[in-house]
Parts: sequence; structure tokens; C-alpha cells
Amino acid sequence: MPQTKILLDENEIPSHWYNVVADMPNPPAPPLGPDGKPVGPDALAAIFPEALIEQEVSAERWIPIPEPVREIYRLWRPAPLYRAHRLEEALGTPARIYYKYEGVSPAGSHKPNTAVAQAYYNREAGIKRLTTETGAGQWGSSLALAGQLFGLEVRVYMVRVSYEQKPFRRSMMHTWGAEVLASPSERTEAGRRILAGDPDSPGSLGIAISEAVEEAASRDDTNYALGSVLNHVLLHQTIIGQEAKRQFEKIGEYPDAIFAPCGGGSNFGGVAFPFLADKAAGREIRLVAVEPTSCPTLTKGHYAYDFGDAIGMTPLLLMYTLGHDFVPPGIHAGGLRYHGDSALVSQLHHEGLVEAVAVPQLATFEAGVRFARSEGILPAPESNHAICAVIEEALRCKESGESRVLFFNLSGHGHFDMAAYDSFFAGELEDFDYPEEAIEESLARLPKVG
Amino acid sequence: MPQTKILLDENEIPSHWYNVVADMPNPPAPPLGPDGKPVGPDALAAIFPEALIEQEVSAERWIPIPEPVREIYRLWRPAPLYRAHRLEEALGTPARIYYKYEGVSPAGSHKPNTAVAQAYYNREAGIKRLTTETGAGQWGSSLALAGQLFGLEVRVYMVRVSYEQKPFRRSMMHTWGAEVLASPSERTEAGRRILAGDPDSPGSLGIAISEAVEEAASRDDTNYALGSVLNHVLLHQTIIGQEAKRQFEKIGEYPDAIFAPCGGGSNFGGVAFPFLADKAAGREIRLVAVEPTSCPTLTKGHYAYDFGDAIGMTPLLLMYTLGHDFVPPGIHAGGLRYHGDSALVSQLHHEGLVEAVAVPQLATFEAGVRFARSEGILPAPESNHAICAVIEEALRCKESGESRVLFFNLSGHGHFDMAAYDSFFAGELEDFDYPEEAIEESLARLPKVG
Repeated sequence: MPQTKILLDENEIPSHWYNVVADMPNPPAPPLGPDGKPVGPDALAAIFPEALIEQEVSAERWIPIPEPVREIYRLWRPAPLYRAHRLEEALGTPARIYYKYEGVSPAGSHKPNTAVAQAYYNREAGIKRLTTETGAGQWGSSLALAGQLFGLEVRVYMVRVSYEQKPFRRSMMHTWGAEVLASPSERTEAGRRILAGDPDSPGSLGIAISEAVEEAASRDDTNYALGSVLNHVLLHQTIIGQEAKRQFEKIGEYPDAIFAPCGGGSNFGGVAFPFLADKAAGREIRLVAVEPTSCPTLTKGHYAYDFGDAIGMTPLLLMYTLGHDFVPPGIHAGGLRYHGDSALVSQLHHEGLVEAVAVPQLATFEAGVRFARSEGILPAPESNHAICAVIEEALRCKESGESRVLFFNLSGHGHFDMAAYDSFFAGELEDFDYPEEAIEESLARLPKVG
Repeated sequence: MPQTKILLDENEIPSHWYNVVADMPNPPAPPLGPDGKPVGPDALAAIFPEALIEQEVSAERWIPIPEPVREIYRLWRPAPLYRAHRLEEALGTPARIYYKYEGVSPAGSHKPNTAVAQAYYNREAGIKRLTTETGAGQWGSSLALAGQLFGLEVRVYMVRVSYEQKPFRRSMMHTWGAEVLASPSERTEAGRRILAGDPDSPGSLGIAISEAVEEAASRDDTNYALGSVLNHVLLHQTIIGQEAKRQFEKIGEYPDAIFAPCGGGSNFGGVAFPFLADKAAGREIRLVAVEPTSCPTLTKGHYAYDFGDAIGMTPLLLMYTLGHDFVPPGIHAGGLRYHGDSALVSQLHHEGLVEAVAVPQLATFEAGVRFARSEGILPAPESNHAICAVIEEALRCKESGESRVLFFNLSGHGHFDMAAYDSFFAGELEDFDYPEEAIEESLARLPKVG
């Protein structure tokens, strides 16, 4: 009988996170202030603990994972690596398809990998409260869980369109003791400003970030936690790719191509960076970031300095961006509705080490249903993006007869996204054209540097 | 660092199911027809394939698990055994608490263990369609999944109160290709009869069973699949307890007491029966079935011959019953709203080998939230019953200073039950008094045998 799951024992949870900066061809471009000068670590001290700021700027290859963090990882890690036998058979492809399943975490996605680490460092620094934003709710619920496990209060600004589409993600956050507000809200200056311009704003990750940062910056006992984009967040997620490497080693396989959904980049970076170390050393492997056509940051954005949030509160980051005030269409993959991207992923894409493709919403749900009907697991809409790209690649292999090893990160389950599946079956889901005009307008408002 | 999860490799999936009949002090009481005479296997042939009928009446200790069934088990089995370190610490108990987590299946509960087996045997027998009932939706979604994996059409009659409380369970069944109807429905004679008496009937498992059986009996290409109660269903679930025994062996532990929710009995029987073999051989171990105070079958019912369904279509089974026409209050643990109980569990309870306790709804949700906030996992309302009883026992151990080993089956996650948690937090959940009068009235209508 063919092996379906490749497991690791919990003693095989990696002892260190992997920092891709050590293996990048060029050092990362520094974040800049509005004056065009590099921003020092001090500027972040109002909202982040020192340990995370150090990780944010570190060039060390290996960063040790604290024992209390690894202890909590044991609640669900190591995550299983699956061979998708049934999907391969359904597609009739000679490709061998593998996926890492991060939906085994209590919050149902890869997000707790960094939430737990961030809650730990904040508690160690004496912080009592955390604020954050969330799109589809995957990140907010992960931070709610992590806050509860480390005794921190958590307030979540949830993008309004997701707040309405996914009421049970809110219930989940309540069960873990967090408070949840729809964003834009009237609680913050940033929220009020957006609502003044558009009282019916569906919100966006950028706006919610502005609100959460504003609150954290204004209170001494409160810090901010971000679910993606920043270097330290991607760092924590590298536990995914490291585990996967060991799992592939166990069965004597190595992927020819890796696919992961890419919004802010933590999912993609988490699974791809540990393999990028091999690529930097000359090994042939494709690393493919998959994004929605409705928010095509890497495939249609500019590589430029821009704000990480919608209002312009953060330092400027050199990244692919659709403009910080671009509000993506309300697709169900809320976690991918971000105007920018991780500076690390952006730079690696700019330097040609990372590929990107964009896929339309309907095709992603078709792929997700196909997957559920062969492999059982119901994937999150974000994960459906990777599945869609993998199925396309597997069908190309079928045509060419190539027996490639394809690997993707099944970043989460869709148990809280069933309304999206309902809409799909009811024929109510739309594909959004590239919103070229809106993007062009936003790009015209990119900040002038220096 | 203390071990949190005890895993087995997928090659350690048991090769046989365990049949408790071989170790019972007395042979099981036979099902009877309305004439009071034992019903032969033939009477079941209209709705079940021969292989399952054989299992229903078998006295063999070990029944081999077919390879295609074990192949599908590999998608999530063996399920992990957890040590609840954090819960123990939160309770300050010297007890060691373990739980088997069945929520790792794609449908989120233990139910696919038998759904997959039943779908397989029906496909082998040339059947094209299956009908079934579902309460909370755990069983219906499991059969939808299993039907999809073996290419069978599935129609699910879903108890109306759950159909309304849990719309996303329906979406899940749709995603796996099944059709879902609210029960009582106008599609069947049984449904129409109930609706004539009470157009607002919230439904019950008993009513939904009547509908599904009626349809299966009337079509040659269609069989019926039951999610609990019957001997073959409990048989398939013994994979849980068998895995748990191996896992305990690996760490040199053995439970002093086992707790599982008990509605129709498959959850309880699945985890407890393999240990009952040891108990029958003289080993000291408590086996505790936990039921809701609003539907207290084992603790308040009569041990008598009664119908398995609400209308009187099934053979008579000797079991603890609240009367086949008793409609339990609409608690959120829909899977426990059954008037009767497995004949095997009932007989073992009657003979003193199995204990039973009843717990009220509010206490179960308090226990579930406590669990979620220490262990992370959000449990299903049914599972909260076991958690509630275990916490009470752990607190007794704290008083007495006893370092007992307590083990429970965490039969499923609560991702589709968040509306129930919302009601709990909003203070809207009720405890139901024992509905003594309704039960007495139903018991007065027990069928006369012979």
C-alpha cells in the first residue's frame, strides 16, 4: 500500500528558524523613513518587543526557537506531509504531488507558527495586550489562541467584508478570549478617516493594519502583532519548509517545484525559503508564489518603496505594490487581499529567484472542490490558489509525460469558509478583471522617497 | 520536554476490527419482530448489503478490515493520542489526562471510520445510492465524504433543528457531492405523518431514520447507512480503542477510567470495547458513558424492547430507551439526541460492565471552553460531554490526591458548532430539566412484545 502521510515525531520539531537573509544574493533593501533615510530598529520599539526587532534586522542564518514556543508547537506540529495519490489518479498525471497540511493547528492554518512566537516574546517583554488586523480571520484567530496560551489580552481589527462573510471566525476568537472589531471602525483616527471618505468601505488589510498600529502606538502596555509581510514573521514560518525538507529526505524525494498562496508572503516564504537555500547553492528548483488575479501584486505591481499600511503610518518598504491605497475586490480569499508583499519575497522575485503566477477566483474554487472530492480535506480559499496552480502544472506534466515532483503548502482548512463554497455552487462567485485603472490610480499616488 | 502527542505510523493501523460480542458475559439479546419472534438476517437485506448483515450478527472476535478501507483510513489515521498537560495544569489535578483526537478526519469526527467501511461494502454489493439520517451533521458529512470516495450518490435527511443551526454542515455535504433534506420532510410517508401531527416539529434522529429507511426500502439501487446504534457500526469504530491501546503501550500507561459521549453508542463503544476485553479478563478499568441530562437514556430510560426509529419501522431492540416517540429538547449536541442506545452498550450497562452519567448542557459548554483555552482544540458539543465528566473526575482526584489515568475520546472538533458557542457566551443556552413527564408518556407507549 503506498505511503500517504510522512510524519515526524515531535522531537523532530526544528530547533531553529531559518533566516533567508543569510543566503540572499544581495542584502535586503532597508526600510526608509519619509525623509528617504533608513529607519533604525528604534523606530519600531513603540509597537514591537526588542527580541522581534532584532529578528527583523538579523542576518544570522539560524535563530533558536525558545523552548516555551516549541512546547506549544507540540500541540500540532510537526505537520504531516501528504502524498496526494487520489488527486494524481483523478488527474491522470505522471507528476507526484505532495502537500504539507498546516490545517492541523487548532486555528486551522499555518498562522499560529508565528502567533505563538510573537505572543511569547511580547509576554517576556512585559506586554499585557496585543492588537492586530485580520483578513479572512485565520490570523486573528491564531493570535487569539496564542494570546490565550500566554495570558495576553488580544484585540482584533477584522476587515469588514470578512467580518460579515465569516461570523464564526469571530466566535472562534471569542472562545479563545479575544475581542473583535469590524474595520474600518470608529475607534481609531485611521478608521474614522476611511469611513469619512467611504462609509460603506469593505475594509482591507492595509486599513486594518493602520487601526491596530495606531492603537498599539498610543498605549504603553500594548504592542502590535502582524500576521505576515515582515521579516520576523516569515522567519517563524520557515518551520514549515524545514519540516518538509526532512520529510522529503525520509522518502528520498525532492521537489522540482513548490507552490504556495502569496498575500503578504508568510505562507510562501515559510515553505519556500528553506528550499531557496539549496537553490542559492545551485540546486534546480522552482519556487512559485500564487496570487489572485484581482490583487496581482507580484505579477502586475511596481517594485517601489511604499507604505505597508493604507494610511501611511509604517516605514516605507521596497516591495511589489499595487499602491498602498488600492482596495482589492472583495474576493473570499481574504488573506490574499493585500496591496503589497513581503520585502524579502519581493526582492527575491525581483532578482529572479522566485516566480509568480496569478489565478482567477472561480478556477481556484473549482480546484478546491476537485481536491476535496479526491483527498477529503476541504481547503481554505487561500490554499485553493496553490491547488489551482499545482493542478495546472500536473496537467502540463500529463501532456508532456514528465514525472515531476510538485509540492504545495495546504496552508489551512476551509471550515470557516463554507459560505464561499455555497456561493460557488450557487453560481454567484465572480471573477474580477484586473482592476487596471484602480491600480494605475493608486500607483500614481506612490510616496515620493527622499 | 514532556511528550504531548503519541503517534502511530500509518502501517500500524489495525488490520482487524474488534467484536465485543466474543467477550460479553452473555450472548446479545436478539432483535425481535412485531410477533415477538427473533428477526433473522434476511429481514435486513432490503436495506443493508450482506457483508454488513454478517458483521451485525457475527460472534467472531476479529473481523478483517478490507485493504481499500484501510487505504482511505490512511488519509487521517492513526489518530493522535494527546496528553492534556495544559488542562491538568489549569485544573491543578494530580490526574494524568489523555485524549484521542478523532477531529483529524476530513469530516471532523470519528464518524468516517464506519462511513468508509459501509460505503465500501455497499459499492462491492453493486449499490449505487445511500440514504441516511444526520443529527448535528457529523454523520451525514462523513457519509457524504465516504460516498464521494467510493463513487456512490448520497441523500441525507438532516434533523430540522440542526439543519437550521448548522447551515455550513450542509455546505460541507454539498462540497462532497451529497444532497441534504431537512427532516421531517414531505418526501416520505414517515415525514408527512410527523408533520401532520406537528408542522413545527424540530425533528429527531428517530424521525430522520424512519425517513431514510423508508426510502432505501423502496428502491433496489438504494441502501441505508446508519451512523450509530447497530453492532456493525460499533464494530468499525473499535479502531479507535485499538489504536489507543497501542499508544498507551508505547508510553507504558494504562487508563483507570475511560469517558466518551454516548448518544447511539458508536463513539463510546468504539473507544471502550477494546478495553472491555481486558475488563472481562479481570483488569480493573471504569468505562463511563456520558449522556445529556435532557436525553438521559442510560441513566433514566427503561431496559426494554423498543423500536430503533420513531415510527416503528425497525425490528425491536432490547435497549435502554426513553420511548421511540420521545422527542428530546433541541440541545446543541445533536448527535446525542437519540431516544435509545446501542443494544450492545445497553446490555453491557445492564450487566454492570459499563457505567453511565448524565451532564447538563451549560456545564458541558463551560468544560469545552476551559478545554479550548488550555489545549487549543475547539471541541464539538458532543465531545464536551466527555470533557465535562473528565474535568469533574480530575477535580475529585485533586481532592483525594489520587494520580489516576483518565482517558477520553475527543470525538470531533466544533468548527461547525460555533453558533452554539455564541449562544453560550450570550447567556442564551438553557439547561433542560429531565423531561420526566414526556419520558413517562413515551414509555407508556412502548411496544408490547409477542
